[in-house]
Amino acid sequence: MPESQQSRAASSEKHAALAKSFLENSRQFVDKKLDGWLPAATTPPETLHQAMRYSVFAGGKRLRPALVLAAAEAVGGSREDAAAAACAVELIHTYSLIHDDLPAMDDDDLRRGRPTCHKVYGEAQAILAGDGLLTYAFEVLTLSLRQGAVAGLVRAVAQGAGCQGMVGGQMLDLAAEGRPATEELVRSIHAWKTAALIAASCEAGALACQAAPSQCEALKTYGQYIGLAFQIIDDILDITSSPEALGKTPGKDVRAGKATFPAVLGMEKARAEAERLAERAFGALRPFGAQAQTLEALGRFVLSRQS
Amino acid sequence: MPESQQSRAASSEKHAALAKSFLENSRQFVDKKLDGWLPAATTPPETLHQAMRYSVFAGGKRLRPALVLAAAEAVGGSREDAAAAACAVELIHTYSLIHDDLPAMDDDDLRRGRPTCHKVYGEAQAILAGDGLLTYAFEVLTLSLRQGAVAGLVRAVAQGAGCQGMVGGQMLDLAAEGRPATEELVRSIHAWKTAALIAASCEAGALACQAAPSQCEALKTYGQYIGLAFQIIDDILDITSSPEALGKTPGKDVRAGKATFPAVLGMEKARAEAERLAERAFGALRPFGAQAQTLEALGRFVLSRQS
Repeated sequence: MPESQQSRAASSEKHAALAKSFLENSRQFVDKKLDGWLPAATTPPETLHQAMRYSVFAGGKRLRPALVLAAAEAVGGSREDAAAAACAVELIHTYSLIHDDLPAMDDDDLRRGRPTCHKVYGEAQAILAGDGLLTYAFEVLTLSLRQGAVAGLVRAVAQGAGCQGMVGGQMLDLAAEGRPATEELVRSIHAWKTAALIAASCEAGALACQAAPSQCEALKTYGQYIGLAFQIIDDILDITSSPEALGKTPGKDVRAGKATFPAVLGMEKARAEAERLAERAFGALRPFGAQAQTLEALGRFVLSRQS
Repeated sequence: MPESQQSRAASSEKHAALAKSFLENSRQFVDKKLDGWLPAATTPPETLHQAMRYSVFAGGKRLRPALVLAAAEAVGGSREDAAAAACAVELIHTYSLIHDDLPAMDDDDLRRGRPTCHKVYGEAQAILAGDGLLTYAFEVLTLSLRQGAVAGLVRAVAQGAGCQGMVGGQMLDLAAEGRPATEELVRSIHAWKTAALIAASCEAGALACQAAPSQCEALKTYGQYIGLAFQIIDDILDITSSPEALGKTPGKDVRAGKATFPAVLGMEKARAEAERLAERAFGALRPFGAQAQTLEALGRFVLSRQS
């Protein structure tokens, strides 16, 4: 093997190990915080809190909170400063999955290998569990150690999650179902539906540590690119993965006539586009130097993940 | 008519006139702000913003924002200071109506005399319109003139609206349907489902003006009592009103076996309880003297309203 290839392989292994251990550590950290902050399953109304906890502790990768914590690291901040923001974005991600899975939306029975919230608790209860998690996410943001950061955090997270972010993307996605998709349409659906909350997560990590506006902006840009790359890989895995690896029914996007990158670009070009977007994401990290190595490792994990 | 009775009648007329003009003025003020802050119906995704606006501008009384503005007045604050909080609570109230009306929840076709959001835009779209409004409410709170008030506002509004507030009450209500109700159960359902957001509205008016904690607390207490009284009158009107006056189908609570005050106490005792609660609410206003006359007038309006 030539020397440059050897060093690339070594660097890739180093990145993979870093991403894996950071994801595992931040998952433990965030799960402990979430468990402490979420109302107990024995606190009335018990069924509501049980439904909220059922979906929050369903075994996600916790990618968004890891990005929050890695962004905090990139600006020299602490994990504790960013803990509330990390939990808030995971609560919002979880609520969006509960509502997406509803019969009126994607009508999914399986999520992360377990029955979806509405299958276990009922449809009305699942709507309320989602509403409860979304509302609670904003309450959790007010628990941020740096109180001066709260207003900016609420704004960034609401924008990433709202009608011109994640919720808006979900609406575009619904409207596009069964209609011929263009690359431009798919790009804007995914920029809103997936990348906006991932971008807000990266921005929130910096905001929580009261970093300079230019740093917050650069990390948001990183999140926009890596968020789009993430969604392309998601679309590819929906086609190539097994139900066991995926934890949900694969091939549903194609059957539902969903607008996806592989559908408009083909598999090979879709993967190349994910790699191109990731390179642009890494470009946004340059000003941070070695402090952004975890964010870069997480970005490389996004590209290489198998589930 | 004896003199004391004459003066009571005059005072009651004065209160009614004050409440009526304050509600009308604050409705105009808040509607203008909402129109300016909500994304335009022509902003993508258009259907989402149209659905959000359809429900927000469906002709509600705007009682909650009026309470926010009256609470601001009680602590010597300005309408502009409290504008964002007033709009936010109305957005949250509107989202809760959209989700309550869904087929999986109360399955209502008519709201404020018009087809419900899901009847016009579809079920998935109505879920998303509700999610969009709830998320946007928190973004609007960050537009508060006093940025130092934002964290406290987000906390208070999230608590009033969330799993141990309005959403929790909705869950209790669902669980109680068709089961024999006790006075205690009805009281706790309504304390959460209705009074919590009304209490948060009153508290938010004071918080938005950075009033003293004791003032914020007193106004929250006022809101808890007047919120419960409001719900009792609502339950009574559901039995006694016409569809035209009510703007929705009356008698639905009784048919659905809903836990209501008239059902557990009878009509006369329910009305007496509403008056007793209102007196306790007015008691909480004493420290504010004449500055709280609008809040008192709004409380008396709550008791005497016919729709």
